[in-house]
Amino acid sequence: MEKIRVGIAGLGIVGASVYKILGLNPSQFNIVAVSARDKLKNRELDFKAIAWVDNPIDLAMRDDIDVVVEVMGGDDDPAYSLVKKSLQHKKSVVTANKALLAKHGLELARLAEENNVGLYFEAAVAGGIPIIKMIREGLAANTISAIYGILNGTCNYILTTMEQTGQSFNGVLADAQKLGYAEADPSLDVDGGDTAHKLSILTSLAFGCVPDLESMSVAGIRAVTIEDIRVADELGYKIKLVGQAQISEGMKILHMVSPSLVPKSSPMAHVGGVLNAVLTEGHLVGQSFVAGRGAGGLPTASAVVADLIDISRGTKICAFGKPVTALSQSPKVSFADWQGEFYVRIGVKDEAGVIADIAPILRDSNISIESLIQKGHATEDPVSIIIMTHDTNGQDVMTAMNKIATLKCVLEKPFIMPVLKI
Amino acid sequence: MEKIRVGIAGLGIVGASVYKILGLNPSQFNIVAVSARDKLKNRELDFKAIAWVDNPIDLAMRDDIDVVVEVMGGDDDPAYSLVKKSLQHKKSVVTANKALLAKHGLELARLAEENNVGLYFEAAVAGGIPIIKMIREGLAANTISAIYGILNGTCNYILTTMEQTGQSFNGVLADAQKLGYAEADPSLDVDGGDTAHKLSILTSLAFGCVPDLESMSVAGIRAVTIEDIRVADELGYKIKLVGQAQISEGMKILHMVSPSLVPKSSPMAHVGGVLNAVLTEGHLVGQSFVAGRGAGGLPTASAVVADLIDISRGTKICAFGKPVTALSQSPKVSFADWQGEFYVRIGVKDEAGVIADIAPILRDSNISIESLIQKGHATEDPVSIIIMTHDTNGQDVMTAMNKIATLKCVLEKPFIMPVLKI
Repeated sequence: MEKIRVGIAGLGIVGASVYKILGLNPSQFNIVAVSARDKLKNRELDFKAIAWVDNPIDLAMRDDIDVVVEVMGGDDDPAYSLVKKSLQHKKSVVTANKALLAKHGLELARLAEENNVGLYFEAAVAGGIPIIKMIREGLAANTISAIYGILNGTCNYILTTMEQTGQSFNGVLADAQKLGYAEADPSLDVDGGDTAHKLSILTSLAFGCVPDLESMSVAGIRAVTIEDIRVADELGYKIKLVGQAQISEGMKILHMVSPSLVPKSSPMAHVGGVLNAVLTEGHLVGQSFVAGRGAGGLPTASAVVADLIDISRGTKICAFGKPVTALSQSPKVSFADWQGEFYVRIGVKDEAGVIADIAPILRDSNISIESLIQKGHATEDPVSIIIMTHDTNGQDVMTAMNKIATLKCVLEKPFIMPVLKI
Repeated sequence: MEKIRVGIAGLGIVGASVYKILGLNPSQFNIVAVSARDKLKNRELDFKAIAWVDNPIDLAMRDDIDVVVEVMGGDDDPAYSLVKKSLQHKKSVVTANKALLAKHGLELARLAEENNVGLYFEAAVAGGIPIIKMIREGLAANTISAIYGILNGTCNYILTTMEQTGQSFNGVLADAQKLGYAEADPSLDVDGGDTAHKLSILTSLAFGCVPDLESMSVAGIRAVTIEDIRVADELGYKIKLVGQAQISEGMKILHMVSPSLVPKSSPMAHVGGVLNAVLTEGHLVGQSFVAGRGAGGLPTASAVVADLIDISRGTKICAFGKPVTALSQSPKVSFADWQGEFYVRIGVKDEAGVIADIAPILRDSNISIESLIQKGHATEDPVSIIIMTHDTNGQDVMTAMNKIATLKCVLEKPFIMPVLKI
């Protein structure tokens, strides 16, 4: 194995962990230079004999670096310019930056190919699970028909804790923020954006198509209530924030992020706390399931270093498994085209005749009801009507619910979740 | 990617599947020659334009082959000579043959290195799960402390079906044989030998040590009763045939195959039917869990073809993750050194005073009892006493049980299972 000369941009929890792990393998790796926002911050790391670079982009130009590790984060500069210029200067790049890849992945993959270097990002999706490698290499002989992921540990922690404690979303979120499990501004996590970034990478790898965040419908978990969790449980399901992609009719690719009902018979239902998991369906192997820690300094650093070890072993694979020119431009569809059963909760006035108002609208939208649960009289409005539909599609459900939302007896926007068959 | 010229030895269900999959990728792979026992067998495959070789070892000598795929099976000739000579003739080898690797893996890995070619065997362990790749590459940055595998689909099917139907081991086995899920001679599966072969490969990869089957204690599932399954369930466990390896005291490696009690809180407990699963513990990522189909033509072929795709991509990794000379000769220990709680079932006469006879023997062996269940009066002897011990070790339990077996009131050899904490 060749000894790899590494430059690290970003010395937060991931970068510092990478720094320590590589330092323990001096025969294999040589950290040449580092860059971070604050040189004076106490990191308990020894930087003697290592160049400190104030502008991370300078790492791209150095002749004494083979590989740049980008663990700064952010979907734009300086991360974007650093990765771009590093590739242009014929350095391989290892990054944990899902937002950057979701936005600029195609361009960066093309640059890597043009310069005959590698762009590696195992750490960008579910750090503790080598899911990129699993799809790109382990299942390479398979045509993948579907992929389902629990990709955001914060959301999974909140949903699991809501279920276990009976606390509301806001209550658990506040606690999680105090404990450092959730960001001060949690929106990227709880509104599904982070899951969407990761899903766009997995979708591209699994289906050999160009990454495409724009066409993806993304819903987060803010609207999930304890009542949803309880009712789903009675019906045999757990609620998880799932990013899913599947081959849909006419070879379109359906991709979406949504809180979803997952049958308890599926291993996905039992992924608790901050864990991540991915379920794939391949034409040769059927379902494969993998679960482990998604984020955190050490699991993410583990993935970064695994990529560096691949580089040191001479492994060379296109970023998205095939050359950029071979990636398909398959049309993408999202929630409106999702086929299957739905869970709908409608907050209504506690009065007679509500179901008589709702039922005709469902009938006219060709939505057939599998079960309808009207929760007993509450002390105050709204009370909930929960409907499980038979197979239908997202568009029809949305159309019906938009009509239902205008009814006088309906007090809240109906809340819709797909029911997965996995 | 270079076009790879392939020779296939063995055209059973795996070989035929590999043949079909490669045939669908003619731009990437070119099947040059095949060999199988019976040329005239109807396989519904088109062999025009492909050389038929009667003696598989001739594949090793052909100049028009880059890679030999060995899917004949068997831990000795012709598979052994074929793989050996192929490597000597500077051809990479892809094999699904766990028995061969368990017995000759070290020698073959050394030959591959000496000849600067690859020895690939993703298909040898849990075909539908890329576990070899996951350990060797995905978790390469981790020091692995333990690995647990459900590695034999037949055993897992039998145990799952016993639990679901209440049938005995022999009853389920007979049905499984009729359905083709179990071999006419099932001993390699149900007595744990197949699991041992696979575990020896995983142990070598996970701990960077030479493969070593000899020092492994191996127990199968013939002795597991419905009563064991019921009692374990009441206590919060499922019974699985688990191959496990872990770093033990003094940097010894403990490895063993045994029916084991797996806590229901572990994902390993919910691996049903013919599925396989592996749980690893790495110092950076913590627990990683992966599950999927273990055997069968298509999942195994999927793994063979994934290895071929790796070869076509130019990936080159030592068979056991590091050079043979770098593999440790760490001392191995097995069941006697296993530390933890045990489940013991003792078949006794239904008479007074039995526990008074047993208890002093346990006390004298320093085995402390967590719970003792004496099953109600049966219509005929023996009746069962089931003991859950506190933490102890396999040697003390065996010593005590050997003494207990000599008691007059004891009618059957005590049956011992470790209780896993995973």
